Amino acid sequence: MHKGRLEAFSDGVIAIIITIMVLELKVPDHFNLHDLQPLSWKFISYALSFIYVGIYWNNHHHTFQAVHSINGRVLWANLHLLFWLSLIPFVTNWMGDSHFSKWPIITYGAMLIMCASAYTIMIITLVRHHGENSVLAKAIGNDFKGKISLAIYATAIVLAFFCPWVSFGLYVVVACIWFIPDRRIENRLVSETKPD
Amino acid sequence: MHKGRLEAFSDGVIAIIITIMVLELKVPDHFNLHDLQPLSWKFISYALSFIYVGIYWNNHHHTFQAVHSINGRVLWANLHLLFWLSLIPFVTNWMGDSHFSKWPIITYGAMLIMCASAYTIMIITLVRHHGENSVLAKAIGNDFKGKISLAIYATAIVLAFFCPWVSFGLYVVVACIWFIPDRRIENRLVSETKPD
Amino acid sequence: MHKGRLEAFSDGVIAIIITIMVLELKVPDHFNLHDLQPLSWKFISYALSFIYVGIYWNNHHHTFQAVHSINGRVLWANLHLLFWLSLIPFVTNWMGDSHFSKWPIITYGAMLIMCASAYTIMIITLVRHHGENSVLAKAIGNDFKGKISLAIYATAIVLAFFCPWVSFGLYVVVACIWFIPDRRIENRLVSETKPD
Amino acid sequence: MHKGRLEAFSDGVIAIIITIMVLELKVPDHFNLHDLQPLSWKFISYALSFIYVGIYWNNHHHTFQAVHSINGRVLWANLHLLFWLSLIPFVTNWMGDSHFSKWPIITYGAMLIMCASAYTIMIITLVRHHGENSVLAKAIGNDFKGKISLAIYATAIVLAFFCPWVSFGLYVVVACIWFIPDRRIENRLVSETKPD
Repeated sequence: MHKGRLEAFSDGVIAIIITIMVLELKVPDHFNLHDLQPLSWKFISYALSFIYVGIYWNNHHHTFQAVHSINGRVLWANLHLLFWLSLIPFVTNWMGDSHFSKWPIITYGAMLIMCASAYTIMIITLVRHHGENSVLAKAIGNDFKGKISLAIYATAIVLAFFCPWVSFGLYVVVACIWFIPDRRIENRLVSETKPD
Repeated sequence: MHKGRLEAFSDGVIAIIITIMVLELKVPDHFNLHDLQPLSWKFISYALSFIYVGIYWNNHHHTFQAVHSINGRVLWANLHLLFWLSLIPFVTNWMGDSHFSKWPIITYGAMLIMCASAYTIMIITLVRHHGENSVLAKAIGNDFKGKISLAIYATAIVLAFFCPWVSFGLYVVVACIWFIPDRRIENRLVSETKPD
Repeated sequence: MHKGRLEAFSDGVIAIIITIMVLELKVPDHFNLHDLQPLSWKFISYALSFIYVGIYWNNHHHTFQAVHSINGRVLWANLHLLFWLSLIPFVTNWMGDSHFSKWPIITYGAMLIMCASAYTIMIITLVRHHGENSVLAKAIGNDFKGKISLAIYATAIVLAFFCPWVSFGLYVVVACIWFIPDRRIENRLVSETKPD
Repeated sequence: MHKGRLEAFSDGVIAIIITIMVLELKVPDHFNLHDLQPLSWKFISYALSFIYVGIYWNNHHHTFQAVHSINGRVLWANLHLLFWLSLIPFVTNWMGDSHFSKWPIITYGAMLIMCASAYTIMIITLVRHHGENSVLAKAIGNDFKGKISLAIYATAIVLAFFCPWVSFGLYVVVACIWFIPDRRIENRLVSETKPD
C-alpha cells in the first residue's frame, strides 16, 4: 500500500488543527492598544501549541521519509495520533482562558502525553511492518528524546498542583528539545540510502 | 480521467469534516476538573464520529487503490458521498447535546444509512465503469459487511423509540465491524496485481 | 510553470468552502423531530450551494486536464475565481436565514454571476496562454452553456423583485444544466490526445 | 529531503487562512439591501487580506519552483512564516470592526512587517542551503521589492498616528507592487533551466 494518501490526509488534518486555533483569538470589542493585552495569555498558548503541532508535523515528515509501504494497522495508528492532536486546540484555549491555572495546565500535559504515546505506538507499528533491521528501526534507536519528554510531562503534571507556571515552563523546555527535527532519521537516510 | 485530484479533493473534505467537529467541544467557563464532566457526552459522540469518518477514509483509500480511471459519473457519486459525510458534524453535536435522547439518536442512524447508501452507489458506479470482471468488482464481492451494517442501523433506529442507549451501542458495534479495513481489496490486490 | 500546486491549492480552498457552510447549520436547542423543521430553509440553501461548488470543482478539474502549463496571469485569474467562490457560504446563509426573501435571493444571484464571470475570465486567460488552436480552445468552443447560464441568472434577479421563489427555481435549473460535467473537454481529450 | 510535503502542507495552511477569514463576515439579522452596508468595512479588509495571502502563496509557489531540496532549517523557517500568516485573519477582523481606526491599522501593518521579515528569513535559509551561485540566489538578487515594501509599511505605521486612512492606502499600494508575481525567478528559470 502506498504512503502518498496517508501523508496527504495527515498534512490536511494537521494544517487544519494548526490553523483553527487562531479562531479562538477573539477580536476585542474596543480598539486601543491595551485592548489587546487580555489576549496575551491566549496568544502565548497559541504560540506554544503552534510549535508543538509543528514539531509533530516535522517528525511525521521525517519518519515517513524512511517508510517504504504501509498497511491497515499503520492507517489506524496514524488516525489515532491525529485524534489526540485534534484535541490540542481545545486544551490550548482552556489553558489560555484560565490564565494558566491548575487543571487546564494538567489537562494540557495529559494531552501531550496522549499525543506522545500515540506517536510511539505509530512508530512501533511502522517498525513491526518494516522489520527490526530496516533503516527506520535503526534510525529510531532507543528513542531517548521520547522517553525524556514523557518523564518531563509527568513531572510537570505533578508540579502543577503546587505551581502551574513551572509546569508551563517545562512544556516549553520539551518544545525546545524537539525544536531540532529528528536528525537521527535524517542522518541514517543520508548514510544508508540514496535519494530517488 | 485521472483519479489524482478526486483523491486529493476527497482527502481535503474528509480532513476538514473530521477536524471541525472539535470546534463544537466548547471550552468550559470555569477551570476545575469537574467542569469538564458535562462535555463527556459530546466527547463520546466526537470519538465515535471520528472513528466513523476514519473508517470512510480508510475504505475510500482502499477502494481507490483498485481504481484505474474515473469518469463524470464517479465524480458526482463521490461528491454525493461527501455531502452526507459533511452532515456528520451536525448530527454528532445534536446527539451529544441531547445526552443521547431519542430523535438525535435516530437522526444519527439515518445519517449513517445515507452515508452507507452513498458509498454503495459510488462502488456500483465504479464497478460499472471498470467492468464486472475487474479486480475491483471481484474484490468487493457480495458486500456482506455493507448489508449487515444497513440491517443493524435499521434495527438501531427502531430500538431508539424504546431505548436510545441500545441504539448507540449498535452504532459502536458497526464501527467495530468496520474497524478492520476492507481486507478484501487488499488481498485481491496482492494476489492479482503487482504494486507499481 | 507546472499546474500541480495551482490544482492542489484550488482543491484545498474549494474543499474548505464546501465544508464550512455546514458550520452554519446550528444545532437546535431542543431534541424533538419538529425542532429540525426550522432548519429546512438553511438545509435547502446548503444543498444547492454544495451542488454549485461541486459543479465549479468538476469544471475546474475538467478544464485543467486540458491545460499543459500556466503563467502568473493564470494564477491570479484562478485566485480571482476562488475569491468569489469564498463568498458563497455568506450568501447561502443569508438566503437560508431570510426564508428566501427578495434581497438575499438577488445577492445570491449576483454572486453566481460574479463566479461565472470569474470562471470565464480564467478560461480566456488560459486560452490566450495556450493559443487559439489548442485542444483547450477547441474544447471550450463558443461556451453556449456559460452564456445561457448568465442569461438565466439575470432573469432570476429581475424576477426576484416580484416572486423570489421563481428566482430560486431558476438557480436550481442552472444547477441542473451544469450537473452533467463539461463533456466537451472530455470528448475532445479522448479524440485528440492520448492519456499518459 | 524532498520539498513535496512542505509544499502540500503550506498549500493546506494558506488555503485555510484565506478561507476562514470569510467566517467573520457575519450574516446580517435583517434582509434588506442596506443591511449589508455595515459590512462594507469588513468586506474591504477581507478583500485586501485575500490579495495579500494570495501574493504570499504566489511568491511561495514561485520561490519553491527554484528549490531543489530542503533541510530541517527550511522546514522551521517555513513554519515561522505560516505562524505570522495565520494571524492575518485576526488583524483583518479587528481592522474591519474598528472602521479603520488607529491601533488596528498599526497592528495590521506590524503583522505585514512580521510576515515580510519571516519570508525574508525563509529566503535566506533557502539560499544558504543552495549556495550563493544557485539559480535561486541569482533569481532573488538584491530583493529591491522586499526592501521598498518594508519601508512603506514602516511609513504607514508612523502615519497611522495622524491619518489611518492614508496608512490603509499605503497597504493597498504595496499589494499593487506585488500583484505582479515575482518575475525575477520566472525569468531566471526560463533562461537557465529546462522544464522537466
